[in-house]
Amino acid sequence: MRIKVGVLGATGAVGQRFIQLLAEHPWFELSALTASERSAGKKYGEIARWRLDVSLPDEAKGIEVLPTSPEKVDADIVFSALPAAIAKEVEPKFAEAGFLVASNAGAYRMESDVPLMIPEVNPDHLGLVEVQKENRHWDGCIITNPNCSVIAMALSLKPLMKFGIKGVHVATMQAVSGAGYEGVASMAILDNVIPYIAKEEEKMETEAQKILGKFDGTKVKNADFEVSASCNRVPVMDGHTEAIWVSMRNRPRLSEVRDAFTKFKCDEVKGLPTAPKKPIIVRDEEDRPQPRLDRDAGKGMSVSVGRIREYTDGVKYIALGHNTIRGAAGASVLNAELFYKKHKR
Amino acid sequence: MRIKVGVLGATGAVGQRFIQLLAEHPWFELSALTASERSAGKKYGEIARWRLDVSLPDEAKGIEVLPTSPEKVDADIVFSALPAAIAKEVEPKFAEAGFLVASNAGAYRMESDVPLMIPEVNPDHLGLVEVQKENRHWDGCIITNPNCSVIAMALSLKPLMKFGIKGVHVATMQAVSGAGYEGVASMAILDNVIPYIAKEEEKMETEAQKILGKFDGTKVKNADFEVSASCNRVPVMDGHTEAIWVSMRNRPRLSEVRDAFTKFKCDEVKGLPTAPKKPIIVRDEEDRPQPRLDRDAGKGMSVSVGRIREYTDGVKYIALGHNTIRGAAGASVLNAELFYKKHKR
Amino acid sequence: MRIKVGVLGATGAVGQRFIQLLAEHPWFELSALTASERSAGKKYGEIARWRLDVSLPDEAKGIEVLPTSPEKVDADIVFSALPAAIAKEVEPKFAEAGFLVASNAGAYRMESDVPLMIPEVNPDHLGLVEVQKENRHWDGCIITNPNCSVIAMALSLKPLMKFGIKGVHVATMQAVSGAGYEGVASMAILDNVIPYIAKEEEKMETEAQKILGKFDGTKVKNADFEVSASCNRVPVMDGHTEAIWVSMRNRPRLSEVRDAFTKFKCDEVKGLPTAPKKPIIVRDEEDRPQPRLDRDAGKGMSVSVGRIREYTDGVKYIALGHNTIRGAAGASVLNAELFYKKHKR
Amino acid sequence: MRIKVGVLGATGAVGQRFIQLLAEHPWFELSALTASERSAGKKYGEIARWRLDVSLPDEAKGIEVLPTSPEKVDADIVFSALPAAIAKEVEPKFAEAGFLVASNAGAYRMESDVPLMIPEVNPDHLGLVEVQKENRHWDGCIITNPNCSVIAMALSLKPLMKFGIKGVHVATMQAVSGAGYEGVASMAILDNVIPYIAKEEEKMETEAQKILGKFDGTKVKNADFEVSASCNRVPVMDGHTEAIWVSMRNRPRLSEVRDAFTKFKCDEVKGLPTAPKKPIIVRDEEDRPQPRLDRDAGKGMSVSVGRIREYTDGVKYIALGHNTIRGAAGASVLNAELFYKKHKR
Repeated sequence: MRIKVGVLGATGAVGQRFIQLLAEHPWFELSALTASERSAGKKYGEIARWRLDVSLPDEAKGIEVLPTSPEKVDADIVFSALPAAIAKEVEPKFAEAGFLVASNAGAYRMESDVPLMIPEVNPDHLGLVEVQKENRHWDGCIITNPNCSVIAMALSLKPLMKFGIKGVHVATMQAVSGAGYEGVASMAILDNVIPYIAKEEEKMETEAQKILGKFDGTKVKNADFEVSASCNRVPVMDGHTEAIWVSMRNRPRLSEVRDAFTKFKCDEVKGLPTAPKKPIIVRDEEDRPQPRLDRDAGKGMSVSVGRIREYTDGVKYIALGHNTIRGAAGASVLNAELFYKKHKR
Repeated sequence: MRIKVGVLGATGAVGQRFIQLLAEHPWFELSALTASERSAGKKYGEIARWRLDVSLPDEAKGIEVLPTSPEKVDADIVFSALPAAIAKEVEPKFAEAGFLVASNAGAYRMESDVPLMIPEVNPDHLGLVEVQKENRHWDGCIITNPNCSVIAMALSLKPLMKFGIKGVHVATMQAVSGAGYEGVASMAILDNVIPYIAKEEEKMETEAQKILGKFDGTKVKNADFEVSASCNRVPVMDGHTEAIWVSMRNRPRLSEVRDAFTKFKCDEVKGLPTAPKKPIIVRDEEDRPQPRLDRDAGKGMSVSVGRIREYTDGVKYIALGHNTIRGAAGASVLNAELFYKKHKR
Repeated sequence: MRIKVGVLGATGAVGQRFIQLLAEHPWFELSALTASERSAGKKYGEIARWRLDVSLPDEAKGIEVLPTSPEKVDADIVFSALPAAIAKEVEPKFAEAGFLVASNAGAYRMESDVPLMIPEVNPDHLGLVEVQKENRHWDGCIITNPNCSVIAMALSLKPLMKFGIKGVHVATMQAVSGAGYEGVASMAILDNVIPYIAKEEEKMETEAQKILGKFDGTKVKNADFEVSASCNRVPVMDGHTEAIWVSMRNRPRLSEVRDAFTKFKCDEVKGLPTAPKKPIIVRDEEDRPQPRLDRDAGKGMSVSVGRIREYTDGVKYIALGHNTIRGAAGASVLNAELFYKKHKR
Repeated sequence: MRIKVGVLGATGAVGQRFIQLLAEHPWFELSALTASERSAGKKYGEIARWRLDVSLPDEAKGIEVLPTSPEKVDADIVFSALPAAIAKEVEPKFAEAGFLVASNAGAYRMESDVPLMIPEVNPDHLGLVEVQKENRHWDGCIITNPNCSVIAMALSLKPLMKFGIKGVHVATMQAVSGAGYEGVASMAILDNVIPYIAKEEEKMETEAQKILGKFDGTKVKNADFEVSASCNRVPVMDGHTEAIWVSMRNRPRLSEVRDAFTKFKCDEVKGLPTAPKKPIIVRDEEDRPQPRLDRDAGKGMSVSVGRIREYTDGVKYIALGHNTIRGAAGASVLNAELFYKKHKR
């Protein structure tokens, strides 16, 4: 018997990815879709402007769209693709009403009692859920995944922690889908680079330290390194590419770094349907990873790493992840799978 | 009376830029164009596959294309748009034969007796020409300009030298024109980023130190800082965008950094026809500079700088320059103008 | 002494082109800019999100933005870059108040007493202004230019009229700027073609017949041929490319068709500052015209034609024009220049 | 037991698509790959510059690359991705030596005894093989598929034949992959349209008549209508979009035309692994088909049709097909499947 799940904010770019991923999910059954008031009451197939290059799944077409409020939604888990401002207001209501809210929104990521998770990296942070429930007197809870550009970086930093990370410089080249369907006008980005993404560098510079921090049973102690980010938009549809420098206290050989990436795995995600075989794929070609060629690796859930090189203070490399799958919808689904495995079975 | 000039390798992307810039030059008169043997003897207008969005100048159409050898060329200055391998062999022959070779090729840039110049940055390095002539017993000489991605960085570092540069991290997002007309296949770069450009990071990591070094009358002592580069190709026609971090011994306020950029000028280039009014233009908008909007600033000769921000070790910012004008043909022409002003008038 | 002019709807993509073209106009002096109520009262330089690759002219920066109503505007001519719905309501008020309204909007193009003009094609249609004034009891008047995709087609059809045009098939490949700055999302058009532009085919199929029609002193009798259009959006910034088939009663040789294009001129536009030297430029290369290379021909006011070939019913060729200059702002300015030459001097 | 197959010219863009399609084919076993002499003797995995966004199949990696000559190849069927000039010389040698040559090359398409096939359209033309063998005294034979831009048009014309096709106008917007990996430089096509593709219009104007012609047991009598084509390259990776006008003797209602498309099927391809469920998919949205969204329909083997509209002489519509799958490698594989079904089982 499958668990009923809903998607909050189901019409946008990330909402559509949620539907794609949940339509054939072995554990979850898509049973509720919410959108703005004016769409409520209509069939999803009628109101959705479906824009993925896979077809709108039949399962979703006939679902009646609901307003985004807990009393309307019949499900155990809700996936939130809401904008941050709306999420801030609505997600607690769902958590209070007993839902597991697996949120892609930024609103609660940095709250001290809300887990900010990448299942392969910090599965133990799920323990914060107990703290959260106690703090807030909620029947349900909120669990979050990082910003789309943080996830490729944070996942690739995890196996390097043992070398003593001192600091990180990162320049991103981010896909337009990260801004949502109407987010970047074609006149803004054709034949162009925009060296600015609102609030993105702030997220890049704070989220990884929480993810890579230590959970002591009551709170997370942030990892102790600094990140300095420079975020850019480029004319790419999907896939964020990141040039990363990691300065280190220890000075591993390049082969040790490569090994750390290729051998990285996490037993806790075993059996989770959305977990890729390899969280990190190392590309040894001189010119990879590239977004068009590598974003779909591991069905969009693997992060590809390449061009591992030394520099004075440590190593530099390129990391790449699919921003709306591993960096958004897929991340939330994997979080929910981990939660479900730990709490419900 | 104008000085006769020629272009070596006149058919490629940089060669065409040379022709565009020289066609209406107030000092120089375009009088010789060279290309491969099979084009020799034909009119330039017949063999050129002209690909700029300004028309092929009438001055160039009727010029008979010559083979690239000094005895054929009737000119005082030759601008070299040759590939490095051919430049290595041919440029010395022209220098020996008495030509001023203003070269955009990489072949001799790092030779200790060859000036590697940005006129606004190190005009005094032109003094190396005397050393070179004595060393090599040449009547003429070779002067060079930096790689197209180095130039925006080096020019923007010059006014920061007074703050004590310790090191530089730089991630580039480079235009396809930097690779020449056939250099990047559309199937390689549409909807994509290529995080690798052959030999580019090596140039980024060595050339700026020479340019910003001190000339003591006989040799250049390189500037003492390290550069670590990560070079990427993006789907942009012209204009290299660079995310730069500069770590500094002194810690200037952001306003001091901004001032250093805006007030930067160089009296030695006064009156040079190709020198832009402002070598560095500071953009204060939150999302500038952008290649499509800013590459043509100062007729393609100004470097635009924006997003000046602090980080733990210093400042980070975005720099942008037109790679085939300021970063190639325009750079060589400006070099030749400086040489001519100092030596011939 | 220059004539005072204003721009209605000065903040959008076409509004910005108007400002660019008018800033240094020898006859016109930019003296009023209007925008939505919430911008009114502020300096244009403060509220404009300037997006052209030439800088915002200093003349415009300090102009105080006005609401779009005739009593506020101090000018003789207003150029309308308003959306059709607003134009429908506002333009008559300006005409009634005595302004010459040179409109790029579609609202009044097909009204029987409003001239729809391309100065080189149907300058005599300006006579409709008298009819219009009498009909509507206006002190001023409205003159219009065609839709951006019609103009390249209609201009290129004019010299072919003598061969007896029976019908036209046209497939367009239109630039994103035709839809306004926010008109086409990057996620919609990157690596894509959209074979639909709302209301565009209807305009293509009706406007040319009016433009090429005969004015008998009181009304225009439409030209008698049919147009069937298929309009497509492509990932190009500026410049509409059109594949055109013209079936003809007479069967000219290709050389006669080429001659008709190259010799086409119109004495009535002599001396108009915005009129290009050649309204139609024939490109003889096998692969031209191309938008990136040819859109700026004649400062964006020439239409380029190439690939003239025979087919069973007549000739086919490619036509290309800059959609926001010849196809919008430049067209309106040229209309106003013609009006001014005829009526005011 | 699977049939051994080889790919001639396995390193190019179409060659790679063949390998992708054949790697997991239920009937065929990839057992030979040929390339130029200098690659011969090496493993495919070593020499291939694999550029598809699916990984190089393991089956292919270890195959030793052979020179393109029949005595070296151990297979029953060879798929030819050779350039036309080489195909002209080499394919007959393979046919003579007994191979079924399923060719995507243009060299023999228009030979009177060589079938030019789209299995759903003219499966009976396979009968030409007997004529061919007798004519040429070959043990094997050559069967061909149309040019990549012809296939979407010809397939969509088939169900319209009953309405009495008089003539066709077609403007194409073709993907860069149609020219091969190095075929279109990024500097040629970024922010651009190229209104010319060498020899493409000639193919568009002749091949469909043969495909839609009648086979009388000894020869094909071409269909009696004229095609006039205007072929354009656009910045799209895969998927050719075509604006088609079909003039007709009978004047069906639009609903009849739509029905003809949706009901079109062909029993002869039943059970062929590469045949899509629907050869033609009708999109009813106002702005479809689009290459990025529809090229992969039916695993790249369905042609999508939309925007069916009337015009004076008949109907116009948009057709779209994946140019390297349905328009190249997939077409050849489907041809071979049909051949195998008819002749070997």
